Amino acid sequence: MDYRRTHRLDELRLENVGETVTLSGWVHRRRDHGGLIFIDLRDRYGITQLIFDPDISKEAHTAASKLRSEWVLTAKGTVRKRGEGLANPKLQTGEIEVEVKEFEPLSVAKTPPFSIADDGVETHENIRLKYRYLDIRRGEIIKNLALRHKAMMITRQFLDQKGFMEVNTPILGRSTPEGARDYLVPSRIYPGNFYALPQSPQLFKQLLMISGVDKYFQIAPCFRDEDLRSDRQPEFTQIDLEISFAYPSEIKQLITEFLRGLFKECLGVTVPGSIREMSYHDCLEHYGTDRPDLRFDMKLHRLDSVLKECGFSVFNNQLQNGGVIKAICVKGGSALSRKDIETYTEFVGQFGLHGLAWMKMGEEGLTSNIVKFFSSEELKQIEKTVNAEVGDLLLFAAADEPTVNQALDHLRRQIAQDRNLIDESRFEFLWVTDFPLFEWDSETRRPKSLHHPFTEPHPDDIHLLDSEPLKVRSNAYDIIINGYEVGGGSKRIHDMNIQEKIFKALKLSPEEVANKFGFFTEALSYGTPPHLGIALGFDRLVMILTGTDNIRDVIAFPKTQKASDLMMQCPSDVSASQLRELEIEAEAKEISWI
Amino acid sequence: MDYRRTHRLDELRLENVGETVTLSGWVHRRRDHGGLIFIDLRDRYGITQLIFDPDISKEAHTAASKLRSEWVLTAKGTVRKRGEGLANPKLQTGEIEVEVKEFEPLSVAKTPPFSIADDGVETHENIRLKYRYLDIRRGEIIKNLALRHKAMMITRQFLDQKGFMEVNTPILGRSTPEGARDYLVPSRIYPGNFYALPQSPQLFKQLLMISGVDKYFQIAPCFRDEDLRSDRQPEFTQIDLEISFAYPSEIKQLITEFLRGLFKECLGVTVPGSIREMSYHDCLEHYGTDRPDLRFDMKLHRLDSVLKECGFSVFNNQLQNGGVIKAICVKGGSALSRKDIETYTEFVGQFGLHGLAWMKMGEEGLTSNIVKFFSSEELKQIEKTVNAEVGDLLLFAAADEPTVNQALDHLRRQIAQDRNLIDESRFEFLWVTDFPLFEWDSETRRPKSLHHPFTEPHPDDIHLLDSEPLKVRSNAYDIIINGYEVGGGSKRIHDMNIQEKIFKALKLSPEEVANKFGFFTEALSYGTPPHLGIALGFDRLVMILTGTDNIRDVIAFPKTQKASDLMMQCPSDVSASQLRELEIEAEAKEISWI
Repeated sequence: MDYRRTHRLDELRLENVGETVTLSGWVHRRRDHGGLIFIDLRDRYGITQLIFDPDISKEAHTAASKLRSEWVLTAKGTVRKRGEGLANPKLQTGEIEVEVKEFEPLSVAKTPPFSIADDGVETHENIRLKYRYLDIRRGEIIKNLALRHKAMMITRQFLDQKGFMEVNTPILGRSTPEGARDYLVPSRIYPGNFYALPQSPQLFKQLLMISGVDKYFQIAPCFRDEDLRSDRQPEFTQIDLEISFAYPSEIKQLITEFLRGLFKECLGVTVPGSIREMSYHDCLEHYGTDRPDLRFDMKLHRLDSVLKECGFSVFNNQLQNGGVIKAICVKGGSALSRKDIETYTEFVGQFGLHGLAWMKMGEEGLTSNIVKFFSSEELKQIEKTVNAEVGDLLLFAAADEPTVNQALDHLRRQIAQDRNLIDESRFEFLWVTDFPLFEWDSETRRPKSLHHPFTEPHPDDIHLLDSEPLKVRSNAYDIIINGYEVGGGSKRIHDMNIQEKIFKALKLSPEEVANKFGFFTEALSYGTPPHLGIALGFDRLVMILTGTDNIRDVIAFPKTQKASDLMMQCPSDVSASQLRELEIEAEAKEISWI
Repeated sequence: MDYRRTHRLDELRLENVGETVTLSGWVHRRRDHGGLIFIDLRDRYGITQLIFDPDISKEAHTAASKLRSEWVLTAKGTVRKRGEGLANPKLQTGEIEVEVKEFEPLSVAKTPPFSIADDGVETHENIRLKYRYLDIRRGEIIKNLALRHKAMMITRQFLDQKGFMEVNTPILGRSTPEGARDYLVPSRIYPGNFYALPQSPQLFKQLLMISGVDKYFQIAPCFRDEDLRSDRQPEFTQIDLEISFAYPSEIKQLITEFLRGLFKECLGVTVPGSIREMSYHDCLEHYGTDRPDLRFDMKLHRLDSVLKECGFSVFNNQLQNGGVIKAICVKGGSALSRKDIETYTEFVGQFGLHGLAWMKMGEEGLTSNIVKFFSSEELKQIEKTVNAEVGDLLLFAAADEPTVNQALDHLRRQIAQDRNLIDESRFEFLWVTDFPLFEWDSETRRPKSLHHPFTEPHPDDIHLLDSEPLKVRSNAYDIIINGYEVGGGSKRIHDMNIQEKIFKALKLSPEEVANKFGFFTEALSYGTPPHLGIALGFDRLVMILTGTDNIRDVIAFPKTQKASDLMMQCPSDVSASQLRELEIEAEAKEISWI
């Protein structure tokens, strides 16, 4: 039988009644009912009901009784209206059914390890990953993949229209001794030497700018051999772009326009025409993090100056030791019990904060076990600073600034979740600027680049490079959506004099520079245009668009948090002759698969 | 100075005269002339002439005298018409020049190792690869990359419109013990185990069909650790696609439509609406190869039956030993000297053919040193079979069939080149079908798959699987353009019964099957739709579109034939700690770079 489909399984409607159609797909469900057999036939688009009636074809009816779930079949028949009261409003094709004249099973199926038809049944993710091809059949993943495809198409069309050229950069590259761990690939022709898979196309895109390609992009596969968190994969995808002869404002405008189009076309959501901007300093000051979730308020309020002479020794000691005091105001939180507050106190303990002070705002003002240590003027100032209203709960953290920030950032997000303060349908964008150029590496006891050593210092701060390098801001920027760091970039150094100052500030010797970045600094010296760019985490963007918090849900064949593929069972042992050809020695530890 | 460009360097025309513009780019050439300084400023789009006149800005004129080739600068000035007779018709901007009011050098440049401005100068490819960023600046490569980008956009738009979904499949995969050599990636988490980079997404795309994704495509990076020929790279790109519930005719139609659009949009060339089809057998019979170049004629003519009783013992012996006799007719080739023919005789010697017999067609019929061995009826039949006309040269090969075919295929192409028979502006497409399913592996002394073991046998030949497997044709097809194999594919097996017959014909034990293809045959058994697909070599397609015969010309950062990157100097030594973490041992051989 010719199995070419006349229709997809989401397409037939009342207006098709009477037509002869050929449908192909999987047996989703079979029901035997009053001498008739009903098959829900499924493809990725939908479900259409087939009906096998012995009065129409005895042969087909008999054969249909042998069909089982997930068999593949093709069927020819006539579209008819379902009987009175039998329409299924949940199905796009629910008003019709197809009376089968003849059919042919194309492929039989073993009983699947989990049901494809029943969404409700919980299956352990490892089983779903082992039988990924069945998991995809259930429909959720395929919807995510379809949106991913759409987002890729929109991205490419947008950038193409803006004059960008997609260039494929190598996947077999050179191991760079900075940043995360590289995946290595042994060379057979040059034994003992290795390629590395790129962590990003950073150097290649800068080389393309030096080459004169003035607008580059790529939806690029990237690799990091790191211990994985739940939103990380060993291989991930990045929208990578770079332009010459422009300033950060052009990148911001480009990305704003891009995201507006993407969210509009994918979700029908209108993103503001201008993305709010906040400095790194202000982010930390008000949210304790450089990627604040702005879908809810509950800012951090600094109380150092208000409380600098207070009588509460816990606060006082911290201030005297260079620490800070910040508070958040939980709207309507005064109903929280002591036990609730204790739970939060334990929670912030994970982040090194040894306690949470609290006050509740009543009709009579602030109350708590510690108000007695504060003057009424101090209490007034606290009220005013945090903008407390009757019924609010104030939570105070006092410690060194990074600890306070980290603890209150997590606390703020935890409370928002617990109190349902987050509107999941909202998308809050933020453009973060003025990052520090360096951070202090306490291990090597020297400054290290917060991004990478080719990031341009902020023009206003170049004079500080020699004297106070840790105060120098960079010309870098991040784009945050709903508290996720979706992307980041910077203007790069195109002036060898400044590049040398940076190497000096990083305390790299000329030998180290030559060894680590030799070919690249050589390239920089042949006439480099001013250039800058950004990279967006494409998987993360698709996570936000699809509303999942599991990165594996937006990747067709993902790896586990141990970087293994449960379906293919890889990594795997390889033959001795393969290793011999590469002149490497390794002893395979056995892996126990599920 | 704000270096944002008001115009690209190919844009200014007479209608812009009087406008104030800002231009940025590279110093292509500087000329000092009658007290004026002229700079040809270059970007990837074109060149615009800047003029520095001391009467307009003494300061700019003085500073301009310090500019050198490949410095980057931004300049502000006024567009003016060039003086009478000074227009340069070779430049798009040749009617105007820009009178510079102020400018700023953005980046200095060392003297490049080869000239960017002089196209004519031959530079060894290794030097060009080492300074790839300068080579790209010269313009040829960037034009190829722009066409490559355009071809990618067209491909994706076409397939998206046809309902295909692009799915990214893993690059860290499992080593498959068949086909070419895999690149391996050591696992840190499971020491001694390895990932492999995919030679193609073959298994993944079939798994996607099993998953219900009924139309998949990907422009996929693929990897092969093989010794490289001039048109091969260790990493290459493939347009990979697969569909369910279709037949080979749908793939042919899809690819025809795709290539028509691609050639039209990229080159303005109209490809016929229907691509000529030829069986594998007929290709070998008439051209000696399964990828004939049809831009010229000069077919191979079989003379076995005509000469089966001839008196020429060289021919006779070959026929008696199971060999064949074929001839090509070189139009107007009778002017070739004995020396020319000797050269061709040496040429075919490379392919194992020990001699070439020849005859020339004169007014009086065929002449040569061997005509005396043939009857006049035989000579008549030869004339008729090869369609000889006065002035033609006939060249004969007699040997076993593969040798004759290989030798005459190469000879045919060599002669076409020597005699300028190839119209380089023509594109001849061919769809080759009916490949054998197996070939004999003389090493293992068993049949092996010509493509891969999941290729479906031709439905008419399934009954031969047990008895005469080498006679079974497959449901595979190739697309050939101008003698290049641009792509190939097949209908896959979706029926486990047939799959088991194939494994049996390949003499694979159940253990071998489980070990090599276990996870995949497991997947096949859960309800597999009929499916088929094709993969097109994207780099090769871009080579044909750009008219180059060097694959490195269509790749931004290519590798040498020894799979090394001369610019980055990779593969490279890595640190002992990196190897220790991977628990592999290897001793780095030093590589001497140019």
